[in-house]
Amino acid sequence: MGGTILLINPNSNPEVTAGMARAVAPLGLAGGPALECMTMASGPFGIETQRHVEEVTLPLREIVASRGDVDAFVIACFSDPGLAVCREATTRPVLGIRECAVMSALMQGDRFGVVALGPSSIKRQYRAFREMGVDGRCAGSAPLHLSVAAAEEAAAYPKVKAAAESLLEAGAETIILGCAGMTRHRAPLIAELGVPVIDPTQAAAAQALGLVLLARGGEMRAAA
Amino acid sequence: MGGTILLINPNSNPEVTAGMARAVAPLGLAGGPALECMTMASGPFGIETQRHVEEVTLPLREIVASRGDVDAFVIACFSDPGLAVCREATTRPVLGIRECAVMSALMQGDRFGVVALGPSSIKRQYRAFREMGVDGRCAGSAPLHLSVAAAEEAAAYPKVKAAAESLLEAGAETIILGCAGMTRHRAPLIAELGVPVIDPTQAAAAQALGLVLLARGGEMRAAA
Amino acid sequence: MGGTILLINPNSNPEVTAGMARAVAPLGLAGGPALECMTMASGPFGIETQRHVEEVTLPLREIVASRGDVDAFVIACFSDPGLAVCREATTRPVLGIRECAVMSALMQGDRFGVVALGPSSIKRQYRAFREMGVDGRCAGSAPLHLSVAAAEEAAAYPKVKAAAESLLEAGAETIILGCAGMTRHRAPLIAELGVPVIDPTQAAAAQALGLVLLARGGEMRAAA
Amino acid sequence: MGGTILLINPNSNPEVTAGMARAVAPLGLAGGPALECMTMASGPFGIETQRHVEEVTLPLREIVASRGDVDAFVIACFSDPGLAVCREATTRPVLGIRECAVMSALMQGDRFGVVALGPSSIKRQYRAFREMGVDGRCAGSAPLHLSVAAAEEAAAYPKVKAAAESLLEAGAETIILGCAGMTRHRAPLIAELGVPVIDPTQAAAAQALGLVLLARGGEMRAAA
Amino acid sequence: MGGTILLINPNSNPEVTAGMARAVAPLGLAGGPALECMTMASGPFGIETQRHVEEVTLPLREIVASRGDVDAFVIACFSDPGLAVCREATTRPVLGIRECAVMSALMQGDRFGVVALGPSSIKRQYRAFREMGVDGRCAGSAPLHLSVAAAEEAAAYPKVKAAAESLLEAGAETIILGCAGMTRHRAPLIAELGVPVIDPTQAAAAQALGLVLLARGGEMRAAA
Amino acid sequence: MGGTILLINPNSNPEVTAGMARAVAPLGLAGGPALECMTMASGPFGIETQRHVEEVTLPLREIVASRGDVDAFVIACFSDPGLAVCREATTRPVLGIRECAVMSALMQGDRFGVVALGPSSIKRQYRAFREMGVDGRCAGSAPLHLSVAAAEEAAAYPKVKAAAESLLEAGAETIILGCAGMTRHRAPLIAELGVPVIDPTQAAAAQALGLVLLARGGEMRAAA
Repeated sequence: MGGTILLINPNSNPEVTAGMARAVAPLGLAGGPALECMTMASGPFGIETQRHVEEVTLPLREIVASRGDVDAFVIACFSDPGLAVCREATTRPVLGIRECAVMSALMQGDRFGVVALGPSSIKRQYRAFREMGVDGRCAGSAPLHLSVAAAEEAAAYPKVKAAAESLLEAGAETIILGCAGMTRHRAPLIAELGVPVIDPTQAAAAQALGLVLLARGGEMRAAA
Repeated sequence: MGGTILLINPNSNPEVTAGMARAVAPLGLAGGPALECMTMASGPFGIETQRHVEEVTLPLREIVASRGDVDAFVIACFSDPGLAVCREATTRPVLGIRECAVMSALMQGDRFGVVALGPSSIKRQYRAFREMGVDGRCAGSAPLHLSVAAAEEAAAYPKVKAAAESLLEAGAETIILGCAGMTRHRAPLIAELGVPVIDPTQAAAAQALGLVLLARGGEMRAAA
Repeated sequence: MGGTILLINPNSNPEVTAGMARAVAPLGLAGGPALECMTMASGPFGIETQRHVEEVTLPLREIVASRGDVDAFVIACFSDPGLAVCREATTRPVLGIRECAVMSALMQGDRFGVVALGPSSIKRQYRAFREMGVDGRCAGSAPLHLSVAAAEEAAAYPKVKAAAESLLEAGAETIILGCAGMTRHRAPLIAELGVPVIDPTQAAAAQALGLVLLARGGEMRAAA
Repeated sequence: MGGTILLINPNSNPEVTAGMARAVAPLGLAGGPALECMTMASGPFGIETQRHVEEVTLPLREIVASRGDVDAFVIACFSDPGLAVCREATTRPVLGIRECAVMSALMQGDRFGVVALGPSSIKRQYRAFREMGVDGRCAGSAPLHLSVAAAEEAAAYPKVKAAAESLLEAGAETIILGCAGMTRHRAPLIAELGVPVIDPTQAAAAQALGLVLLARGGEMRAAA
Repeated sequence: MGGTILLINPNSNPEVTAGMARAVAPLGLAGGPALECMTMASGPFGIETQRHVEEVTLPLREIVASRGDVDAFVIACFSDPGLAVCREATTRPVLGIRECAVMSALMQGDRFGVVALGPSSIKRQYRAFREMGVDGRCAGSAPLHLSVAAAEEAAAYPKVKAAAESLLEAGAETIILGCAGMTRHRAPLIAELGVPVIDPTQAAAAQALGLVLLARGGEMRAAA
Repeated sequence: MGGTILLINPNSNPEVTAGMARAVAPLGLAGGPALECMTMASGPFGIETQRHVEEVTLPLREIVASRGDVDAFVIACFSDPGLAVCREATTRPVLGIRECAVMSALMQGDRFGVVALGPSSIKRQYRAFREMGVDGRCAGSAPLHLSVAAAEEAAAYPKVKAAAESLLEAGAETIILGCAGMTRHRAPLIAELGVPVIDPTQAAAAQALGLVLLARGGEMRAAA
C-alpha cells in the first residue's frame, strides 16, 4: 500500500532533522508508509520561547494544507506547536510528540516522569498535562538546566541519568525524554535503569504508523 | 529483524480470534514482527462477568511466562484482565486493549465516548477510567443492551451508530468500540460520522508494533 | 495618577470595538486610568476558527511590545488568543477575557454556566477550563447555534435567555456570556433571572483597573 | 454615581483596620464608590482558631443585613468567615479575601503559592482550595511559623521573602500573602522577586470596585 | 466496658430525635456504649437555611466541650454543622452524618446518588463533595422538592423511590438518604431496588460505635 | 439476633490470623455478631506480589459463595484482593481493609498518610487511591523498607514512628497502618503522636459490625 508519514522539524537546524530520521528509521518497513523527515527552513534555529512556538504555527498549517500526498503528520517539537490549527486544516491525523509521548508512557507504566530542559519548560508542561487531563499521573519533571543543543550531546548523559533517577525515586515508572533531540540517551538509560524510556518523536511516529496502516478500509483490504 | 507480537484472545471462541486476526492484518508488514493470534482454549466462551475475568488471569500469566520467543503481548479483552500480574512476570511489553484504545483516542481528539455492551460494563469503565486518571476526558458511555455475540453481528450496526451519535451529541470527538469484536462496524462508522473510530484490538496491536520496532537498541541498529 | 488600559479588539469590526467601549465606560473614572479601545485592523472581521486565532496572535504581541505607554492590556476575544506570547513580551499585566470571566464568576457563585455560540466553541471551552484547572466548577455550556454577529443583536435575547435558564436548571449559579459582543443581554438577564451575569470584557477591564490602581508602590503613594 | 464598598475587619484590632484602609486607598477615586473600613468591635483581637471564625459569623451577617446603604461587602479575613450566610442575607456582592486572592492570582500566572502563618492555616487552606476546585493550581503553601501580629511587622520580611522564594522554587508563578495584614511586604517582594504578589484585601476590594461600577444597568447609564 | 455515644439533633423538634433513636437502636448492645440521643432545645425547628446552620454551630461546640463523659459525638444534620469547631474543642471523635454517609456508601459500591430535599441542598452538596475530594464518585443528586417534614412522612415514599430510581439510571450503585429524617424509607427501598441504601444517622452512629470500641488501648484490654 | 462476620486472612500464616483476632476482639459484644477469623490454608505464607494477589482471588470467592451462614465478609489483606469478584458472588457486604481504612481515615481528619512496607506497595496504593477517587486527600505514603513479617514485630516500632512523623510533617492528619499485621503499633503511635491511627482490619471489622446490625429490617426489629 505505501503511503507517507511526514515528520516536520519546525526548527531550521538540519542536524536535528537528521537525528530524527535516525530515530524513526526502525519504523520504516517494506510495504509500510515512507517516513519523510523535513526541516522547516523558515523556523528558528531552536524553539526556545513562546514566540518561537507562535512563529512556526501558521507555517506548519501551510505545510499540512499543501501536502495532499501525506497520510499522517508528526510535528516534532515537544511544545506541540500548532496542533489545533493543523487539525482544523485536515481530516488526516496530525500528531504532537508531547501528547504521543505521554500517552505511550501511560500504556507502559503507572506514573511518568519527564526529563526537562529547564524550569520554564516544566511550567509549560504542567499546564499541558492539566489540559490533557492526565496531571494525576505525572510523578514530576526534573530540569537539566541545559539548552536544547547541549541536551542532545553525548556529554549530557550523566545529567540525564541523574534526572531520570530522581524521577524514579519520586515514584515514576516510566521516563519521557522531554525534547525532540535526546534520542541518543534512550538506549543507555533503558540499559542502566531497566524501565521504559520514551523518545517523543519515536512515540509519535509509531502512533502515526499504526494510524496509517489502519486507516479507513484497511481492515477490509487486509481481509480481501 | 522480525520478532513476534502475540495477541491472546482470552475466551475460547475461535471466531473471535479469527476476527481479531483480520482486524490486525494490515499491521503485518514484511520485515516487521509477525502478529500471532491465539485462542485461550481454557477460557470461557465469552468474558461477561468478573468471575470470567479472574478465571483467565493466571492462565494469561502462564502464557506470558512460557512464551520467551514473544516480543510483546496484547491481551485482547476490553476488561483488560491480568495486566498487572502479566507485567510482573516479564519485562517485555504487555498491553491491554482498553488502555490502548483510550490512549489512542486521546491522541486523536479531545473527549472520547465509548460504545458499551450494557450498563454493567459502563460501571466497570468508569472505575477503570478513574484508575487511569483520564476520567476528565470521557464524554460518556452509551449502552447497546446487547450480548457480546450480538454486538459483533452486522445486524447490530444501527444500534452501534445510534449509540455513537448520542456520544457525539454529548461532546465526544472520538468513538471507542468497547469490545474486542466490533471491528466490522469501524469503517462504516468512520464513513458516516466523519470522526476517528477506535477498534481497541487494532489500537493495542499498533502500539505493540511500535514498541517492538523501537525496542532497546533498535534506533542504533537502524542507523548502522 | 492616570495611566492607560488598552483593550484590543483583535477583529477588524469597528462596531464590536464601539460596543466594547460602551461596555467598559462605567469603569472610566476621574483620576483613574484611561480605557482605550482599539480595533486591530489587520484582524479578520470575526474570530471564528482556530486559524483566525493564530493569525491574530503575533500581531497582538507586536502591539503589546510597541505600546510602552500602556499599564495593562486586555485581549478582548473569548478564545483568549495570544495570552502566553504577549505575557512573554512584557511584565505588565495582559488579561484574557475568558480567563477573567471565569474567575469573576467563581467569586460570585459556586458553579458557572456559559452561553456559547455553538458546539465547536463548547469543545474549545472544555479544554480551556481543564487547562485552567477549574472544570470541576463548570455546570455546563449551552449553545445558541448563532454566529457572532447574530448573537450580538437584540433579537437574540430570547435564545440567550433560554440558554441561561437551561444552565441554571443544570445547577449553575452564575452565567457567563461566552463572547465579547453580548453585553447588551446582560442587564435584562440579571433583571429576569436574578443571578450574576458576567460580561467577559467588563470582567477583564475591571480586573485591569484594579491591577493598575494597585501596581507596585501604589499603596505607598496613597499613604503618603 | 458614588456608592459604598464596606470592608469589614472581623477582629477588634483597629490597627489592622487602619492598615487595611491604607492598602485599599489607591482604589478610592473621584466619582467611584467610597471605601469604608470598619472594625467589628465584638470580634476577637485576632482570628486564630476555628472558634474565632464561628464567633464572628453571625455578627458579620447582621452587619450585612443592616447596612442597606452598602453596594458591596468585603470580609477582610483570610479564613473567609461567614461568606455563605452573608450571601444568603443579601443579593449584593459579598466577597471573601481568600477567594479573591486566589482568583486574582489565577489571572496573573499559572500556579500560585501561599505565604502562610503556620501549619494549621495550611491545612485549612488545602481544604478551602479543594472546595474552590482549584487545588490543581496550588504549587504549595509555606509556613512562617509566626503569629498574625508578628507577620505584620517589618521585621518579618526576611522570613516572608524566604517563604516566597521556596514557593517559586516549587513552581509557583505568583505569590499570595496569606493573611489580611501583610500588605507592607508586597512592594518589596515584587521589587526583589519580579513576580506578581497578591495582597488579599486589595484583591477583594478591587473586585468589589469592578462589581459596583458594573452593577446592573451601569453599562446603560454610562452610555447615556 | 460501656461508654457513651451522644447523638445531637441540632433542631428543636423532639419527633426527629425520637426517630433518630429508633434508627440507631439496633446499634445498642449489651457491653457496648450507650447511644444517647438529645434534642438541642435552642435550635430552630428545622435546619433549612445557612443561617440555621450557623445558629447551631457554637451551641454544638458548647455541648461537646461540656460533656466530658461522652466518648464520641454524632451531629445529626445532613448539613454537617459545626464539625470543624467541635473537633477543635476535643480530641474525642466528632462525626458528621453527611461525611459518614458518603464514606459508608463508598465502601459499599462505586458511585453514589443522593436523594435530596431540593435544588438548594443539591448545590450545598456539590460544594461539600468537592471539599471532601470525592466528587468524582457522585453519580448525581435528585431533588424531592419537599420540605424536611414532608420528606419524613410515609406519603413521601413514592417520590423517594422515583428519585432513587433516577439515580440508579444515572449510574449510582448506592443510594444515600440526604436528610436525617428519612430512615423509614430505607427498608422498603432496599427491598424494592436491591441496592445498599444508606441512612446517614445510622452510618455515623455505626462509625462512632466502632471508634469507641476500638479507642486507644481497646485492643489491649480485649487481649488481656 | 447474633449473626456472623467472617474475617478471612488470605495468607496461610496462622499467627497473622491470631493477631487479627486480637485486633478485632473489642468489637465482639454480647448480642452482636460473632467475629470469626479464618486462615486460608491454600494461600501463600505472605501476600507480597501481584501473583499472590491473583492466586487468592478465586479461592476467596469460593469461601464467600459457600458460606451462606455469614452476614458480612472482611478480606483482611491491604491489597484488597478479590473484592469485585466476591461482591459479584453475593449481595451480602464484602469489605476490603484498604478501602475501609481510607474511608475511616477520611471521617477522622482531612488528609491521610500511609505507613507502607516499601516502594512497590506505594505504587499500588497510588493507583488504588486514584481508582477510589480520593487521591486528592492522600498526603503521602512513607516506606518502611521492611518485609511483612518484620513490620509486624515490636522491633519495627521506631521505623513505624519515624515514617508516621514524616507523614504528619507532610500534612497528614491521620495515619493508616498499611498492612494487616501492624496492629500492635497503633496504641503507642496514638499515645506518642496524638492523632488518629487506623488499623485497617479493625476499620473494616467495625464497618462490618455496623452493616450487620443495621441490615435490612434491623431498624424495625429494634423498634418493636
